[in-house]
This record gives sequence, C-alpha cells and structure tokens, in this order.
Amino acid sequence: MTRVELIATGDELLNGVIVDTNSPWLMERLAARGLPVAQKVMVRDDRPAIVEALRSASLRSDIVVVSGGLGPTADDFTAECAAATAGVPLELHQATLDALTVRMSKRGLTVGENNRRQAMVPAGATVIANRFGTAPMFEMTIGRGRFFFLPGVPRELMGLCEEELFPRLADLVAAAPLRRVRYLRCYGIAESALDQALAGLPEAVAGLSVSFRTTLPENHVGLTVTGSDAAEVDEKLQTATVMARERIGTACFGVDGQTFADAIGGLLRRARATVATAESLTAGLCAALLAEPPGASDYLKGALVAYADAVKESVLGLPVDLLAREGAVSEAAAVEMARRARALFGVDYAVACTGLAGPAGDASGQPVGTVFTALSGPSGDETKKHFFGFERDRNRRFAAYAALDALRRRLL
Amino acid sequence: MTRVELIATGDELLNGVIVDTNSPWLMERLAARGLPVAQKVMVRDDRPAIVEALRSASLRSDIVVVSGGLGPTADDFTAECAAATAGVPLELHQATLDALTVRMSKRGLTVGENNRRQAMVPAGATVIANRFGTAPMFEMTIGRGRFFFLPGVPRELMGLCEEELFPRLADLVAAAPLRRVRYLRCYGIAESALDQALAGLPEAVAGLSVSFRTTLPENHVGLTVTGSDAAEVDEKLQTATVMARERIGTACFGVDGQTFADAIGGLLRRARATVATAESLTAGLCAALLAEPPGASDYLKGALVAYADAVKESVLGLPVDLLAREGAVSEAAAVEMARRARALFGVDYAVACTGLAGPAGDASGQPVGTVFTALSGPSGDETKKHFFGFERDRNRRFAAYAALDALRRRLL
Repeated sequence: MTRVELIATGDELLNGVIVDTNSPWLMERLAARGLPVAQKVMVRDDRPAIVEALRSASLRSDIVVVSGGLGPTADDFTAECAAATAGVPLELHQATLDALTVRMSKRGLTVGENNRRQAMVPAGATVIANRFGTAPMFEMTIGRGRFFFLPGVPRELMGLCEEELFPRLADLVAAAPLRRVRYLRCYGIAESALDQALAGLPEAVAGLSVSFRTTLPENHVGLTVTGSDAAEVDEKLQTATVMARERIGTACFGVDGQTFADAIGGLLRRARATVATAESLTAGLCAALLAEPPGASDYLKGALVAYADAVKESVLGLPVDLLAREGAVSEAAAVEMARRARALFGVDYAVACTGLAGPAGDASGQPVGTVFTALSGPSGDETKKHFFGFERDRNRRFAAYAALDALRRRLL
Repeated sequence: MTRVELIATGDELLNGVIVDTNSPWLMERLAARGLPVAQKVMVRDDRPAIVEALRSASLRSDIVVVSGGLGPTADDFTAECAAATAGVPLELHQATLDALTVRMSKRGLTVGENNRRQAMVPAGATVIANRFGTAPMFEMTIGRGRFFFLPGVPRELMGLCEEELFPRLADLVAAAPLRRVRYLRCYGIAESALDQALAGLPEAVAGLSVSFRTTLPENHVGLTVTGSDAAEVDEKLQTATVMARERIGTACFGVDGQTFADAIGGLLRRARATVATAESLTAGLCAALLAEPPGASDYLKGALVAYADAVKESVLGLPVDLLAREGAVSEAAAVEMARRARALFGVDYAVACTGLAGPAGDASGQPVGTVFTALSGPSGDETKKHFFGFERDRNRRFAAYAALDALRRRLL
C-alpha cells in the first residue's frame, strides 16, 4: 500500500486564524483515487522544524505533498529546506525567472531579489510551471518519498493538483484498489435515524462501507465501495445506492454535488412551474437559496421580505385584523403570506415563513425558535408549525430549509 | 520557550470527510495564553503510527495535547499506545469504571467489556474525570513532554480544555509573555493595499506584529502585541489600533467580533433610520445580511426581490419603457429600483442592486459579473458600476457587500 503524507507549512495555520481548507480537499480527492492520506503534519515557518518534518516523511512515506512557503517573502523558505534535507544546493531555474519577468513586466514591474529567490529550486528537482501564480511547483525524490512541493494559496494548490499532481500519480492510482464514493444528501432525517435505516447494508453488499457527514440542516450518507474490478465496483455502488435510497425515502433529495436548491430547481423545471417567496424571519434566505443554481430565473420570479408587520399589510396586503387577531407569528399569517405572494408575483407556487429567530421573543409569548411555514399552489395550501431551539443564525437557516422542503415534497 | 504540539487521531480526519475544528479552536486559545502551537500531527487509527507520533513528540515537545481514540469501540486504542510509548502497563481505573457504571445504570444499561476497556489507563497517569462524556481524560509525562489525552468529540474536548487543561497550564501561562490580539475588519481594500498602508507600523510600536486573514470580500488585519507588563501591552495595542485605523481609513468597518451587518446596523440605529432593499441578482442576500444582528427589525422593514423583469415593473413599479430602453442591468434601473423601494416600504434608505451573476449573460452583451448598485436616501441618490469576474456565488456575495457598503459610507 502506498503511504501518502501531507505537510503544510505556515505560522498562520498554527495560530488557529486560518483554517487549512487545502488538506480536507486534497484528502478527499486522494482517497477517491485509492490513495488515502496516512498522516498529516503542520509546522511553522521555522527552518529546523520544516527540515525535520521533511526528513521524517522521507523515511516513512512514499508520496509526500508539501504546501506553502514558496512565495517571495522572507518567511518563504521551503525550497531551501528541501535542498538541505536532500543534501543538494539550490539552483536558479531560468525558465521560471523568465516567466516571472514576463509576468511582472506586463504589470510594469521589474524583477527584484525577492522574485529571483522564488526561481531558486533544489538541484535535480523537476520544475512544473504554475499557470495560477508566480511560485513554481516542483517534484523531487528524498529517501523513500516522491515529494511534490506546491504553493499554499488554495486556488493555486487546487489548480495544480488537478492539472499536474493527480495526472503524475496516474500509475499509482491505476494500481490502487478501486474505490468509488457516492454521497446521498438528505434533509429532515437525523444522523441516528439514517444510521438505523442503513443498518445491515454493508453486510448485504460486499465491499461497502457507510459513513456520515453533516452540514446542518443537511445530513449526508457516504457509500464507499472498494474492489478490484471497475464494472463490479460500479454495479455494487449502484445496488447500494438503490437500496439506501429505498430505505431513506423522500428525505434523500440529491446525490453527490446536487444541492438542495438544485433539487428544487430541477423539480420546478420538470413541472414548468414558477415560484416566489414571502419571508419574515428568514429575510430573503429562501429566495437567495432558490437563486443559487445557474438559470434560476427560469422559475424564480421574486420575493417579498415583509420584516415589519406594516409591510405585511401595506405591500403584501394581509388584512389588518388578521395580524391583530392571530399575530404575525401564526399559522394564519403564514398561509395568508403565501397566498398573497402567489397572487402578487403571479406564480404557480409561493413559499412563506414567519417566526421568532431570537434572541428576543415577541409579545405573543411563544418561545424563540417557533416558526410557521406555508406553501400555496395550484392544488391548495398547506402550513406547518416548527420549533428550532438554536441561536438566531441557525433558526433562520433551518426555517428557510423547512419552508422550501414543503415545496420540494409537493413537487415530488 | 515552551514547545506545544497537538496530535489528532482518527481515520475520519484523514479522509477529508470531517474537518478538524478542534485544532484551530485550541490553537487560537493556546496562542492567546502565550503558548502558541509549534506543530500539529494527524494520524490514522493505526497503532504503530500513533506510537511513532507520540514517541516523536516526547522527544521534541514540552506540552502535547492528544485528541481522539478514547472511546469504547475497537478503533479506540490511544490509551494502549500511550502505555506502549511510555513502557508501562495499562491499569483499570476503578473510579472511572464506577462513574461509568452509575451513568449507564441510570439509562438501564449494564457495563460491558467495551466500557471496561474505556476505564483502562496507563499506569502512573493522572486521571481527570470527564463530566461531558464517558471517556476519561488523563495526563502523564513521556520523555520531555507533559502529555494530555482528551476525547475527540468537540463538545467534550472544548469543555475539558476550558475546565481542566487551561487551568493545569496556569503556571506556564503566567510565565509566558503576554500576548493581545485585535482584528480590524475591512472591506473594499485589497490585502496588498492593507500591507502597504501598515508598512512601518511594527517598527513604530515595539512588540507589535501585523498579520492578515481573508474571508472574502472582507480582509482582516490582526494586530498582535507581546510584552511582559499588562498595562503596557494594552496601551501599545490601543496605540497600534488608532494608528492602523487612521492609515486604513473608512475601509475599516469593525473591530474583533463586530460584523459588517453589525456595523451597518449600528449606524442605522445611531441615525434612527430605517432601510429596505430591492434586489435582482442577489435575490435576498442584502436583506438576509441586514437581518443578521439581533434586533434588526428596529431598522430593516422589508425587501423586494425583483428577479423577473415583469416583477420589477408590476410590483416595484419601474416604468415599462425604462427596462426596454436601458435594460435591467443598467445604472438607470438600479437607481429607479432604489427609489421605488424607498417609496414602497416607506423607509429612509433603500439599497438596490442588479447585475449578471452568471454563468450565462443576457441580451445586453455586458460581461458576466457586471453589477450596478444604487442607494436612495433623504440627501439624494447615488449609483455605481462594478465588475466582479468570479463565479456565480461569489459575484452575488460581492454584489451584496458593494450595495450595502454604499449605505454604510453614507451613514458614517
């Protein structure tokens, strides 16, 4: 088994100020290629610490991806540490310097000593041009390990991984056990309930493992199948997907990269239907979610945020006595908001929600986190009461999902 | 200087499926106590790898915080690895087993072999009761290092750090140099421009260092002052803050935890003014941002998302010939949207934006990323053309910030 290790350098990573998003991204993609990461090390911009990390990795790992410290500033010395670890000198890489010179002269700048430093790489390293930035990527062997040095800037690192690193690992990927992952995205079902629903699935499909991840209020199920024959692995993954979806039911709204908004957009397109929203506590979150997929203007026509009660009456046209009688946070208000929005925007469906986001409550005395959602459509109106006992932000996000999920279920 | 190291164990961390949120949390808090983390290592649930990580840390670090692998399941064997590294046997910790027995009997369960395993700790270790869960925390010395072993569940780890770990490091904290950090949150200024604006500041204030972090479209400047005298450090931080704000100017909207929405909300409150929005490409993002701070209903009255041109005319009341003549993505449309929203909602200020989020353009032929924002208020109207050459999500987010920043600047 190929042992893969990641080394990330940078003081900012160890101060807890910057969260390292490169590593999870890279880990997921390497694992998907049958090259799971065995170890990850994070060190400060400190020469002895970097050299020690490189040396240790060179003794225990086959593939080592090092990120950070290739920039032009004084705290960028990863190339220098790589040369020291390998026991080779640094050399000027002329093509890199030339490219840098061209790049800078286009912006009316001349190459300084700092930039020249950026073109210095360990002797014997294979330099790989970086079309995403100025720092070159390079590859070299130290001890047991094939080392790849990449800039730490996420856009550069991700671009270089896709275009340069992964293709260079193709032979290892081909030799690795096949591993295919599919994520089933779910809403409205707890992780424990998903766990229960899928109990026994790994026993029913050989080579299958089940994992869970949460991006609230969504819960995702990961189905992973490993094996040696591609057709067999694909077939097993398909079988597992069908079985899992059957057990989870309509709580599963999408697969892999299909977002909640994509799912609803797809259903609206299929129904050739249009939509609008009327929102109080969510203040535009429902509409903003609906507008995420490209081409959302095909179905989303508009939204009215009626944050103040006066706006619910003056713009949306709610009867004055309704709010006085029932209160703004009520089933009656939610339904009426949906009905009025449907008429105001001339759409097939309107979604509404009203509630108490917190931290303060209102005169009604209902607990913070109380939310009423409503849906108005060609086949009638519906409404639902919810209770989310979270802090303000999360109450609003959960309310938006709840309101939109009623639409999704109506369109299934 | 005390060398601090973190070791996190767990397959899920190295598959990129779970993002390790414990470490940044712990790093920030340790740094604030003058004990910055020098190195972090992540290893899989693999005995030789964990032992090797513990052994290396015992040679190079003074304080080592190890998380994960203390649970009851088969892949939890951190205590066993700690014992192996220290060369001591595992021993049953009776008080832990007793506490576990009580806890489980309350839920009608009896203690099994798995739970008994959880009560096994390295001989000589100091066991620290965990009131947040079932796995005990323990402390022991291996080589140069004082090791603290904690469960990986964030709620348990964070609780135990606050109540047990940090107090146990009190003597080190007292001896560490004082360190105070302040963040200046900025919008509308590039990181390179901030860097330039603050050049020479660390030379002007002894003990000051300047750092940068980005959460687009915001850029934050970190001012860190270290020293030995608390009053002196606080005074220097204050001096540095004043100097930095003077140099950055109005691009700095807030300090530390004060968000963009907090800043605008504060200005609206000060002016006793109300606000509404009229949005096209942002589809509610401006209003949703304005609604983030608690009590936002004091100033936010409503919003109209006019995603379809027909809605811009029918609900917002834009003249029919205006869209035909100028197009929906135009300065004229933006200004008229703001004016009409101000009248419709009866507010002091209205913010509007219209533009092309992409990926597809429109009939006007303007490039994707073209955005017009407008502000209408008691002292007049203003409008601005922007170009954001990003992907759809980011274009929308940048547009919302640009629209709201005009309001912020008007209220300064």
